[in-house]
Amino acid sequence: MKYSFLNDYSEGAHPKVLDALVSSNMAQQTPYGDDDYSNTAKKLIKDKIGNQNLDVFFVSGGTQANLIIISAALKSHESVISANTGHITLREAGAIEATGHKINSVISSDGKLTKEDIVEVLKEHDFGAHVVKPKMVYISNATEIGTIYTKSELTNLSDFCKKNNLYLFLDGARLGSALTASNNDISLSDIANLTDIFTIGGTKNGALIGEVIIITNDKLKEDFPFHIKQRGAMLSKGRILGIQFLELFKDDLFFDLAKHSNIMASKLSESIQANGYKMSSASTSNQIFPILPNQLITELEKNFEFYRWSKINDEFTILRLVTSWATEESKVDEFIDVININN
Amino acid sequence: MKYSFLNDYSEGAHPKVLDALVSSNMAQQTPYGDDDYSNTAKKLIKDKIGNQNLDVFFVSGGTQANLIIISAALKSHESVISANTGHITLREAGAIEATGHKINSVISSDGKLTKEDIVEVLKEHDFGAHVVKPKMVYISNATEIGTIYTKSELTNLSDFCKKNNLYLFLDGARLGSALTASNNDISLSDIANLTDIFTIGGTKNGALIGEVIIITNDKLKEDFPFHIKQRGAMLSKGRILGIQFLELFKDDLFFDLAKHSNIMASKLSESIQANGYKMSSASTSNQIFPILPNQLITELEKNFEFYRWSKINDEFTILRLVTSWATEESKVDEFIDVININN
Amino acid sequence: MKYSFLNDYSEGAHPKVLDALVSSNMAQQTPYGDDDYSNTAKKLIKDKIGNQNLDVFFVSGGTQANLIIISAALKSHESVISANTGHITLREAGAIEATGHKINSVISSDGKLTKEDIVEVLKEHDFGAHVVKPKMVYISNATEIGTIYTKSELTNLSDFCKKNNLYLFLDGARLGSALTASNNDISLSDIANLTDIFTIGGTKNGALIGEVIIITNDKLKEDFPFHIKQRGAMLSKGRILGIQFLELFKDDLFFDLAKHSNIMASKLSESIQANGYKMSSASTSNQIFPILPNQLITELEKNFEFYRWSKINDEFTILRLVTSWATEESKVDEFIDVININN
Amino acid sequence: MKYSFLNDYSEGAHPKVLDALVSSNMAQQTPYGDDDYSNTAKKLIKDKIGNQNLDVFFVSGGTQANLIIISAALKSHESVISANTGHITLREAGAIEATGHKINSVISSDGKLTKEDIVEVLKEHDFGAHVVKPKMVYISNATEIGTIYTKSELTNLSDFCKKNNLYLFLDGARLGSALTASNNDISLSDIANLTDIFTIGGTKNGALIGEVIIITNDKLKEDFPFHIKQRGAMLSKGRILGIQFLELFKDDLFFDLAKHSNIMASKLSESIQANGYKMSSASTSNQIFPILPNQLITELEKNFEFYRWSKINDEFTILRLVTSWATEESKVDEFIDVININN
Repeated sequence: MKYSFLNDYSEGAHPKVLDALVSSNMAQQTPYGDDDYSNTAKKLIKDKIGNQNLDVFFVSGGTQANLIIISAALKSHESVISANTGHITLREAGAIEATGHKINSVISSDGKLTKEDIVEVLKEHDFGAHVVKPKMVYISNATEIGTIYTKSELTNLSDFCKKNNLYLFLDGARLGSALTASNNDISLSDIANLTDIFTIGGTKNGALIGEVIIITNDKLKEDFPFHIKQRGAMLSKGRILGIQFLELFKDDLFFDLAKHSNIMASKLSESIQANGYKMSSASTSNQIFPILPNQLITELEKNFEFYRWSKINDEFTILRLVTSWATEESKVDEFIDVININN
Repeated sequence: MKYSFLNDYSEGAHPKVLDALVSSNMAQQTPYGDDDYSNTAKKLIKDKIGNQNLDVFFVSGGTQANLIIISAALKSHESVISANTGHITLREAGAIEATGHKINSVISSDGKLTKEDIVEVLKEHDFGAHVVKPKMVYISNATEIGTIYTKSELTNLSDFCKKNNLYLFLDGARLGSALTASNNDISLSDIANLTDIFTIGGTKNGALIGEVIIITNDKLKEDFPFHIKQRGAMLSKGRILGIQFLELFKDDLFFDLAKHSNIMASKLSESIQANGYKMSSASTSNQIFPILPNQLITELEKNFEFYRWSKINDEFTILRLVTSWATEESKVDEFIDVININN
Repeated sequence: MKYSFLNDYSEGAHPKVLDALVSSNMAQQTPYGDDDYSNTAKKLIKDKIGNQNLDVFFVSGGTQANLIIISAALKSHESVISANTGHITLREAGAIEATGHKINSVISSDGKLTKEDIVEVLKEHDFGAHVVKPKMVYISNATEIGTIYTKSELTNLSDFCKKNNLYLFLDGARLGSALTASNNDISLSDIANLTDIFTIGGTKNGALIGEVIIITNDKLKEDFPFHIKQRGAMLSKGRILGIQFLELFKDDLFFDLAKHSNIMASKLSESIQANGYKMSSASTSNQIFPILPNQLITELEKNFEFYRWSKINDEFTILRLVTSWATEESKVDEFIDVININN
Repeated sequence: MKYSFLNDYSEGAHPKVLDALVSSNMAQQTPYGDDDYSNTAKKLIKDKIGNQNLDVFFVSGGTQANLIIISAALKSHESVISANTGHITLREAGAIEATGHKINSVISSDGKLTKEDIVEVLKEHDFGAHVVKPKMVYISNATEIGTIYTKSELTNLSDFCKKNNLYLFLDGARLGSALTASNNDISLSDIANLTDIFTIGGTKNGALIGEVIIITNDKLKEDFPFHIKQRGAMLSKGRILGIQFLELFKDDLFFDLAKHSNIMASKLSESIQANGYKMSSASTSNQIFPILPNQLITELEKNFEFYRWSKINDEFTILRLVTSWATEESKVDEFIDVININN
């Protein structure tokens, strides 16, 4: 049986999360997200952020969260700006367009958007009613290629969006990893201050399933539950999302798990670079993209699974290695051994 | 703490289902529904039905299943016929319309559709391109008011749909209860033979969350996973749906739980009628609708929660009482005692 | 060649309208509705209404106007209330639903909606996020069965909508006929005061094609041209709509044509009733629905075309007779002769 | 009054087209496109193409035609591939996305798509249900920057699309100009043979308004009128489209007008190049893009209107000059005089 670095959702939930599901199981609860666990978890998250004026919701998955948020925020003629690497652009089977909205895709080399990128899109769309009206900026933190935003970058984006009447939406499917990265200088409160709406991903960081949607902009709060229901995301047993986030946030388990994930990725990354290999993106989160010789890759594939991301040339290929809360350090060590031995 | 007969999703999952989640938790699995548990569960369900030529998928919830099925099956000018009591008509926040499709609503007194109802809709839509083209018939079994279809009724509908080039879609959110009702004469295989697509609800019958989508008509199978993904319903950890249905179906736990639910409902129903009260619908499934005097209702509300469905007059009100796999017989007995004592 | 009372769009445009098209033809004009003719026509219409704070647009057809207005006004979870006889409900091939919105259909015997009808819909939708949120009321004047609203009726509706935060949209595809009906007490200014948005139909009253959209509620004005463009309704040669409405409104030709249409319908209606036959709706506009014996109908069909609306019994059938600006009085007389002779 | 080279829709219709509208005006006709003129025009177009097995429809405008065609052809998870210069990508206010479909935009330097472009898109979309499924290729002829397809280019595209189960849709908003360009080697019959569906633009070539939709692939014919109606494009007075195309095609007026337009553009283009200036695209159709010095442009702007397309540097700017059936040769000569004098 090969050990998988394919993704951060190969295992179930962290055992403590499962325990919480089991121990709360037989209590009768109000459905549709109005249960005690969800309400307590929402309170807890607001406390962590230090802002009670937030609307908090739990849904099952990331694509679901993205399509609900975007379709709830935008009118039919409004569009969303995203990096070409953005999950909504590349990997959601047209989910956003299926709700009627265009994505203005911007080519990004590091997975991030800058003010300049957005200025360019706005300029291209300065043709009145003949073109869509960009109204939202979608960013991911960590990005899909492992990089993270600095506080200064996020602040600049946020300022620009406010000035230009654009909503800033941060997709935090891997926010845990971003916020616990070694070079991170952003807090959860910063994110709440700098964005109009954002998500915190549970699925990839200890939960069975579940993403938190946090709305900071009052305009986006109105009637939000209707959109959750209309897109089929209002679980009758909303309790199972609430109890998981309660467990993840009550003792900072969420951040501890993300840290572990990052440490495992760093260990891999450092060893790979110590062996003289390069990384294709400056990732400090739990997805890393080493450029390795094909011969070595073949050796690694004997005992490990991972994704061949893209071919560089006949000799080298970019891999994607993903770690998670569940990654075993001994397996990381075995992986490194193969690299060391074959160098 | 009052005991709730409000719905069949007040508790979590049957303990065996939770056990299966726990014991399978740390095995690394392929994501997106291609894990061992899901594949085995799909095989098992096909075996139960006795037909290998089926496509089987697992999604989180009922509204989600409905909107995926309908939008995947219909082209933009096609509509779906439903009873006015149908879940898609009444209780899904416009989820079907949000995918671009009209629902042709038919007033139904018993929650069921007949060939005659559909003939009427087709006649009203015999105006070429000026009107939508009805292309699918949506029925629920058990219905939203607790009644169930007989084999003869379902066969008649199925024959008519086939002759008229209409897809027949059976929403089985409460199919377990329907198939184990005392007066049921339909099997799972019958349903597969008589419909083009149908669902089996897990959420209301022992699972934490989860609905099975079963496609019998080859035309509806093409590219179905794209629709699951596009609507945000393709869980990265599809395993958590698979393992639950594996547990529910491997030893007929699914049917045992449904039977319990029906027995509890029957017990309530019989006692209520033995006290001289009437029922507002001929339910034999796990939702019953007794007509009780307001004074008695006030007494019951001291210890129980349930839904006041609709007011009959100043003296009487229709209640909805829902039982489930988790309903405690002792609580049913206490409920009945209150009725007996107050008669 | 039989003479047609089938509809009010069997002929082209009033000759003066064609003349205007011809005489303005070679002048170079700014496209997309910003031409001199459109701008002058918009000014003229605002003057007629006596309100400069209006946004006025011209589009090609009625279904187009309806779908643009409704999709521009509503967010995805909001619905529109309409009589079951409403054009959007019955005769637009699911155009509204294709933009993602549910129509809450209300059974109406006279084609009109009342406050009570809407109260009923709101009551049915008092279930939070589980149901759509009714946000707009759609009415037609004249209605699809020829009746018209009184000022008192429209005022009551308007007051109720304002109090309940509902937009009131009046579909005026046959507004000319309504406003010039013998029993009408509403002015164009009244309509602008009492609705949030309304249309004035040109296609059925002298224009080649064209409907005016008039927005009175500031909230509905924002970005409206984007919606016109997005639905394919922004004509590059917007001039051809502008010049027509300029001609129709500069000397009240619009109202003169509508009056003629109504007079022809009244003449038919009065003669039919003078012969002892009944009408199935209390129409005072240009569509009338007499109930005639089948034998007489067969006689009439020898020289005239019209629509057999619905069968009453083996002896009687409801017809629809439609007159227009182009209806020749001599043909009306011939029609009446057949009735008189056969009585 | 400045003379406009801004676009090919500054005037009304060719006088013969207006005459036809006038002379047919009072004949009573069947509505919704089933009138004598439309039926005759459809027959005539099929005859010109030499293929009776075509479905032909008339609609008002280009964006309308595009959104109807694409939404009628595609299921919700299917996408359309277009050059980044394509009208649907750039200039339709998100009309295609509003029907739920993603556009896969391909950067094209000459406005055309090649087999290689499409191969690249297909490769990027070889990820099963995680991405949209490209199903249609959209091309324009002439393109939005004036270039035209050769028969060999179109044949290669067509072959590739057939092999890969992709629909080929040719937007012929300026097809007249393309087919009468000096270097054109494609016939109307070729286009019918090589595409699955295409349009012929009337609005920009002599009609008041109107685009022809021609369906060659049987699969795309089914229920097409429903889509026309659902998108608000089925004119009650369809006659006004039919009569125009009847006039345009009965004596090849359509082609004569396009030829005039091209000759005027060539004259401009040749004179500009004779003065030593370059063109930014190899246009042989009625839109040309000369690169002129800003000082000269200022001179030209004293008497002419045109579009400053994009700035090259501080000295030079790309202009767009558009000619049409209505362009007066004397004005072209005056324009050239200004260039000659200022050289």
